[in-house]
Amino acid sequence: MQDALMRLTGYWAGRGCLVGQPMNTEVGAGTLNPATALRVLGPEPWRVAYAEPSVRPDDARYGDNPNRLQTHTQFQVVLKPEPGDAQEQYLGSLAALGVDLRAHDVRFVEDDWASPALGAWGLGWEVWLDGLEITQFTYFQQSGGLTLDPVSVEITYGMERILMALQGVSHFKDIRYAPGVTYGEAFGQAEYEMSRYYLDDADIGAVRGLFEAYAGEARRMLDARLPVPAHTYVLKCSHAFNVLDSRGAIGTAERARAFARMRGLAHEVAGLWVERRAELGHPLGDASGRAAATAAAEPADAAEASPAALPEITGPGTFALEIGVEELPPNEVARTAREVADRLLRGLVEAGLLPAGSPLDAYATPRRIIVVAEGVEPREPDREEAVKGPRLAAAYGPDGAPTKALLGFARGHGVDPAGVGTVTVGGGEYAGYVRRVEGRPAAEVLAALLPGIVAGLRAGKNMRWNAAGASFARPIRGLLALLDEHVVPFAAAGLRSGRETRVHRTAERPAVPVASARDLVPTLRAHGIEPAAARRRAVIAETAGALARSAGGTVDLDGERALVDEVVDLVEEPVALLGSFDGGYLDLPEEILTTVMRKHQRYLPVRGPSGRLLPHFVAVANGECDHGAVRAGNEAVLRARYEDAAFFFQQDLRGTPEEMRDGLGTLTFTGRLGSMADRAERIRAIAAELADRAGLSGGDAAAVRRAGELAKFDLASAMVIELPGLAGTMAREYARRAGEDPAVAQALYEMELPRSAGDAPPAGTPGAVLAIADRLDLLAGLFAVGSAPTGGSDPFGLRRAALALTAVLRAHPALAPITVGGGLAVAARHQPVEVPPETLAEAERFVARRLEQALLDEGHAVSVVRAVLPHAGAPAHAERAAADLGGLLDEPRFQRLTAALQRVLRIVPEGTPAGYGPGLFQDPAEHRLDEAFTQVRAALPARPALPEFTAAALPLAAPIDAYFDAVMVMADDPAVRANRLGLLAAIRDLVDVLDWREVG
Amino acid sequence: MQDALMRLTGYWAGRGCLVGQPMNTEVGAGTLNPATALRVLGPEPWRVAYAEPSVRPDDARYGDNPNRLQTHTQFQVVLKPEPGDAQEQYLGSLAALGVDLRAHDVRFVEDDWASPALGAWGLGWEVWLDGLEITQFTYFQQSGGLTLDPVSVEITYGMERILMALQGVSHFKDIRYAPGVTYGEAFGQAEYEMSRYYLDDADIGAVRGLFEAYAGEARRMLDARLPVPAHTYVLKCSHAFNVLDSRGAIGTAERARAFARMRGLAHEVAGLWVERRAELGHPLGDASGRAAATAAAEPADAAEASPAALPEITGPGTFALEIGVEELPPNEVARTAREVADRLLRGLVEAGLLPAGSPLDAYATPRRIIVVAEGVEPREPDREEAVKGPRLAAAYGPDGAPTKALLGFARGHGVDPAGVGTVTVGGGEYAGYVRRVEGRPAAEVLAALLPGIVAGLRAGKNMRWNAAGASFARPIRGLLALLDEHVVPFAAAGLRSGRETRVHRTAERPAVPVASARDLVPTLRAHGIEPAAARRRAVIAETAGALARSAGGTVDLDGERALVDEVVDLVEEPVALLGSFDGGYLDLPEEILTTVMRKHQRYLPVRGPSGRLLPHFVAVANGECDHGAVRAGNEAVLRARYEDAAFFFQQDLRGTPEEMRDGLGTLTFTGRLGSMADRAERIRAIAAELADRAGLSGGDAAAVRRAGELAKFDLASAMVIELPGLAGTMAREYARRAGEDPAVAQALYEMELPRSAGDAPPAGTPGAVLAIADRLDLLAGLFAVGSAPTGGSDPFGLRRAALALTAVLRAHPALAPITVGGGLAVAARHQPVEVPPETLAEAERFVARRLEQALLDEGHAVSVVRAVLPHAGAPAHAERAAADLGGLLDEPRFQRLTAALQRVLRIVPEGTPAGYGPGLFQDPAEHRLDEAFTQVRAALPARPALPEFTAAALPLAAPIDAYFDAVMVMADDPAVRANRLGLLAAIRDLVDVLDWREVG
Repeated sequence: MQDALMRLTGYWAGRGCLVGQPMNTEVGAGTLNPATALRVLGPEPWRVAYAEPSVRPDDARYGDNPNRLQTHTQFQVVLKPEPGDAQEQYLGSLAALGVDLRAHDVRFVEDDWASPALGAWGLGWEVWLDGLEITQFTYFQQSGGLTLDPVSVEITYGMERILMALQGVSHFKDIRYAPGVTYGEAFGQAEYEMSRYYLDDADIGAVRGLFEAYAGEARRMLDARLPVPAHTYVLKCSHAFNVLDSRGAIGTAERARAFARMRGLAHEVAGLWVERRAELGHPLGDASGRAAATAAAEPADAAEASPAALPEITGPGTFALEIGVEELPPNEVARTAREVADRLLRGLVEAGLLPAGSPLDAYATPRRIIVVAEGVEPREPDREEAVKGPRLAAAYGPDGAPTKALLGFARGHGVDPAGVGTVTVGGGEYAGYVRRVEGRPAAEVLAALLPGIVAGLRAGKNMRWNAAGASFARPIRGLLALLDEHVVPFAAAGLRSGRETRVHRTAERPAVPVASARDLVPTLRAHGIEPAAARRRAVIAETAGALARSAGGTVDLDGERALVDEVVDLVEEPVALLGSFDGGYLDLPEEILTTVMRKHQRYLPVRGPSGRLLPHFVAVANGECDHGAVRAGNEAVLRARYEDAAFFFQQDLRGTPEEMRDGLGTLTFTGRLGSMADRAERIRAIAAELADRAGLSGGDAAAVRRAGELAKFDLASAMVIELPGLAGTMAREYARRAGEDPAVAQALYEMELPRSAGDAPPAGTPGAVLAIADRLDLLAGLFAVGSAPTGGSDPFGLRRAALALTAVLRAHPALAPITVGGGLAVAARHQPVEVPPETLAEAERFVARRLEQALLDEGHAVSVVRAVLPHAGAPAHAERAAADLGGLLDEPRFQRLTAALQRVLRIVPEGTPAGYGPGLFQDPAEHRLDEAFTQVRAALPARPALPEFTAAALPLAAPIDAYFDAVMVMADDPAVRANRLGLLAAIRDLVDVLDWREVG
Repeated sequence: MQDALMRLTGYWAGRGCLVGQPMNTEVGAGTLNPATALRVLGPEPWRVAYAEPSVRPDDARYGDNPNRLQTHTQFQVVLKPEPGDAQEQYLGSLAALGVDLRAHDVRFVEDDWASPALGAWGLGWEVWLDGLEITQFTYFQQSGGLTLDPVSVEITYGMERILMALQGVSHFKDIRYAPGVTYGEAFGQAEYEMSRYYLDDADIGAVRGLFEAYAGEARRMLDARLPVPAHTYVLKCSHAFNVLDSRGAIGTAERARAFARMRGLAHEVAGLWVERRAELGHPLGDASGRAAATAAAEPADAAEASPAALPEITGPGTFALEIGVEELPPNEVARTAREVADRLLRGLVEAGLLPAGSPLDAYATPRRIIVVAEGVEPREPDREEAVKGPRLAAAYGPDGAPTKALLGFARGHGVDPAGVGTVTVGGGEYAGYVRRVEGRPAAEVLAALLPGIVAGLRAGKNMRWNAAGASFARPIRGLLALLDEHVVPFAAAGLRSGRETRVHRTAERPAVPVASARDLVPTLRAHGIEPAAARRRAVIAETAGALARSAGGTVDLDGERALVDEVVDLVEEPVALLGSFDGGYLDLPEEILTTVMRKHQRYLPVRGPSGRLLPHFVAVANGECDHGAVRAGNEAVLRARYEDAAFFFQQDLRGTPEEMRDGLGTLTFTGRLGSMADRAERIRAIAAELADRAGLSGGDAAAVRRAGELAKFDLASAMVIELPGLAGTMAREYARRAGEDPAVAQALYEMELPRSAGDAPPAGTPGAVLAIADRLDLLAGLFAVGSAPTGGSDPFGLRRAALALTAVLRAHPALAPITVGGGLAVAARHQPVEVPPETLAEAERFVARRLEQALLDEGHAVSVVRAVLPHAGAPAHAERAAADLGGLLDEPRFQRLTAALQRVLRIVPEGTPAGYGPGLFQDPAEHRLDEAFTQVRAALPARPALPEFTAAALPLAAPIDAYFDAVMVMADDPAVRANRLGLLAAIRDLVDVLDWREVG
């Protein structure tokens, strides 16, 4: 291991890196070392490499777990500005470590990085070596809340993992650390003892005290304008926080608050550092975009297009564009190809080089976007252009002779004044003439079109990388543009186009020239790369299926569609491999096993004939490799992950649900809202009230009662602390195993639903009631303590909670007695803090806005949604109303009714009380309207659905129209006027099933 | 710089070292990293190398000082067990760094190491490169209070210093850290900001809180039996303490208390670590002495002397013994040579190989002890030995015939029974015979004698190094023993003797064979080494004098005798070099300049004709070198040190003495005794009272008053905080510059005297009074709070204080009105705590014991000292009495008087009251004694000196003797008896100028 560290140090020092030292206070990652955290800020160039023993109390496992250590060794490299070939340099470092890049499956898998505590984020990858995450590779975009210019590349190696893979050992303790000394011999005792400290023995009170003291010193140092010591104290804060966390002393809300505090300090540190460096005159220089632009200005201009060099073709040709990129996130691959194809097509059609609707071939892999267009005309068609001179009136004298203006125009354009006629431009008539304009050659059109297409690329999350200022999901590294055999020259994203394409990085020649546009796809295929996603999918389906069959099972390609889609866009040359794991792990709940396979490893589960999981999986490598080595590597990774899961599972099974629930007391929720146990108890009480209100009885009522008693207990389980996504799933599992009623177990599972916007809500009523109680508690409590979301910040996920609340209520019309407002009022009564009425109202409005958004997202028209919003407090009702309204909008009688009612509503001032007497009527139309109103009121059922209402209220339409034709509502006599408005207000109150003003 | 670190890492990794990482909490030195602090404990082997950014808040200088950094980089190597050639391996590492060992002056200069906070110590050196300390090299003896087995070698490189020397830059900021980046560019801002934190901005209250929290966690982890986290918290404690210290918030006594606490924790950590490693079964093995002895037992025995191989010489020969050692402390060099010579001579004389009193030639350098004996007889003389048989009575029957016993004896010894005669053994007569024993050859005698001489070497401070269990000032690495041209074979200290001697380590062949005993010294001289100290001294005197003359000055060899003595024993081949420094530094007080030269650098100051310092110095290198390079190096070191001193001096001069005195308030003395300001105020008040008591007036009284107001002010000065040895000196300097009366300045200087046992006490009376007040305050206060010395522990230096108190009182008989007891009572009244009478009495006894010891050390006989102890409260008087008594002891009349008085004192029971009446006299002798007593009493002056007393009291002798001849004191009649005892008691009380019982 030490040899590996020395090799990496030597390798990067040889590439201009300063060799740094680890931070001399505990840090969770090399990123926190000021050599990264501060140095990536500001314009100064910086290259550094250092080892960083990284302390993660949460990963403490007493040294038992083969892969997890409370202190693992990171090797950290920062390249600022990014050098343009950081991936290749990185691969070189793996080779320097002795990794045979052709035998192994090295992959860059999307993994964006964000540190809330640092106020930092970046886009990049985790690097997989045979499925094992060995490196984090990030283009830093922000740190300390500041946008970075220049952008730094951060490469963080996980040394233990790399060494385990290289040495072929399956436990970190077996790593040969130095000649004759294993890792376990050297550091085993420290692992055990520090694990004891972090998991069992650290004094929570003392460490809380340290946290406060550190935060205080950080604050003081910021005030003293000393960012370096301030940063040190922020790091100490962060470590103290981590210790508290690993001791189980931090609840969700406390975590959010502490993060906010640390983030605030980190932001100030960053800002202050930048200021101080500027005051010091940037001792290391300026490598920012501004500086680069200044320096590059002249040569860049000089290099700009010499259009004379543009190639020409003589007949319809083929054009191929390849945008070479670093590994894109899978969900951007196909989307980007479509977008490029659309824009290219639009440009070519506009230029008349292709007929509208021509089919373009779009291809995409993680590393390239390709569009091929056939039959591209060699030139734009020629066209005529009116050249406008003086206004006709000013062009000729009264005698019809050309004026001076016209003569000047003619002279200026080199035409004979006699040849000037009349042209019409923008409806005006001018002296002028028509000129024939020759169409540009295709290459020229493309050279003008392509820079905009490349520069206009955008993804869901975009990054900057170099001084050229381009912005996309990942850096663009190559541009191929061929018109038949000619290069179409253009420049974009700091690159110039050419004819080279990049094949596998491990190829003999990683970049190969392409002879002509038609050869691009064949050339790639000749190098093993399949640019067509459909073909890649077919290969995966076929080979994965065959492998599964060889193990006596199948892969559920339909069921795993999302995963297969992802895998298709993770590789350029899919190579499926069958791996196995110890059948003993099948004792673990299936959800755990498949969650790990899918989410963490992108493996396809293999199932037997009965649908039960088999101890196999299919992994898809990228490109040919040593199958034995890669399979073994992937198996080792999965084994380690299952080992971890088994550890948690066994640990949890030692306790009962009740015991875990008691553990909630140690998890703070927020200071003023008590512990997670307090919250669970509130959920129980709120759910009980709601169940009464909704009239639940029998089994449902009992299930709510019992599940309420156990609510959230699994948050204190080791498994859920480790894999929070399994909250609810584990509750169901542990409850079942503890012998709880299946309905109770199911309710505990369902109360966590829906987990996200698209997720299904609880199917059962008890789960729904608990889910509602859960969200109501969150909303009432956090609004009361002033933690409502603001702007982009929603640390407690209240938007998601509100949306979930409406989703559950919508899915359970039978729970209609529970309204949002009523439910919030119940929840408010159970809070340990006072919840004023205006706060409750605010929370209710907040939920209404989420419902509004959801209905809009589901495709309801804005007018429909606005019209049903008065029912936002009863989302199920609102949803039905929206659906009904959508169906009615096109019906003439509904339109008739709407128009009539809108006339009423427009004229009645807000706050006008309903009430009138026929004695003041002055017109028969008033009597007729009164009559119709009285009949309709009598005919309307209670709480009518919209179609019923429409049918019943339609008789009002004609009397209303007649009324307005005959009557002047705003009569001079105040009494008469009030009486008229009182009648209209009564109608208004009768028709409040919708906000009619919004309809239409 | 990073290249240097990589080279060192590679060098030591290539020598089997594990490459470690810096500690991830702030440490003051690489030693504190558990990879050293814990790993040196216990029997497991361990070799490690790592860089350690070492944080020393005290060294913070805002990045301004060229040599001092709050964080400097250590490179730390631990070799356990010590490999036997660690010095050579170390030199190899310097060569690997690019140091030309032949051009530069690399020296191992005694520097023992102790860390009170760690409970650790070791013996070793600082390594000098051209006068610059670049490395600490230590044989670890104890850590955490535990004796180490095996012994580790610790090598700590100061990287910045090494790099400055290698790169020839004079400020750390100019070090080229990485290609294109200087140290200052990379770390300058951190130096400044962390300096600000440590010196100005750290919150004292917060950091005190951290200290307590850390200590608490350390305590808890010890209780949980987790030494690793406990150690981490001890380190955090230590850093918090250092921060408080650099903020000036720690007083002497608080320091001692905090150290005691940290030491206690560190001891427990060490003990617990050793236990835990044993429980773990010593995963890395066992390299302890016990294990080594077991392993080595057989071959060692096999190798033991084959006496047949012992050489023989035929005529008187020459014997040479050389014990090769690693660099000895200078004060051990000559002493050891004398001891070896004495012991060798004794052995040879006892064996009859040399006549008693033969002159041996003893030589010594730091690396070798040589004794050469000429005229060694080839063999011991033959001798006769009585062989004892049965008792004579049992040897012959009544008939005179040999008994069976005799016959058996004769048979057993193979002698003719007739040849058996009578031998006398131990006064008894036995049958037996006299055998002639042949003397052993000289080589055999020597081979038997030498192991004891080598193994018996002892120094003031001894160390162990290897498993052979030897113990000496430094490791023994070579044994040469030649009798003429023959090797005298023996084994000691794990070595076997031979004929090789080690010359300069940089020589072509560092070990050369010596042909014969006579050739040893010439061989060494041929290699440049001068084994005779006198010759080395002569070379130094001559060359240093010449160099000084060349600069127009002289070196005061007599005045610098102690320094020259030291230098003589620091080198084997003295090469004097003249260096210079910037004349601007001569503006600093001379004491500062010369203190730095002598104490820190062992340079000889050069003075001009007027005695004023010149800007030159003479350094003495060891062996030939590149003079230009070595001079430049030494000059750079001195410049840096003077720069430091100038920084402090200028900083101090910005304040007045009063302002500095006010700074004393921030220095805690001890918790219960207040701050250093409180102590200074007490000294002022005590001195004022004492001055009154001693009747001071006029200038002396005024000087005491004013100096009292400023007492100790310089303890708050930067210079004294840095160089505590200049306390008093700086007070005088700063007081003078502030315009204080010269007498006041002098008193402030003198009140710190004497600094050590041999030092001169204050010459002036005001200084003496203040010095007395100072020590009285210390004694009264610390005895009162229970901090009296116990056993070997005297953290506050009270023994030294008591000794100083007696020394000052002895030097100032005019201050006789101030007694120890009276003074302590005055001091007690000013303490903020109650000082009970028994405590004062205890303190007074403590001072008396110190006086007793001092008088004994000065050569007074035990009986004399005991006799004068009744005057210990007035040390000046006691001293005079002792001197007088010494002079009188041989005088017959004094002996006569003594004998008479002792008769009196022997018979009077303790507590007998004086008083008698002639009325009860029964014998004329009583009357005569009464008469003599009355006359003597009248004749005695008040407070007579001993000679006066003797002259006056002599007339008592005869009457006393006559009295005892005639009178039975213990008469039957109680009244008569009481009367007689009353007379004798009156004499007893009259003669209490001495404790007469002790005289003689």
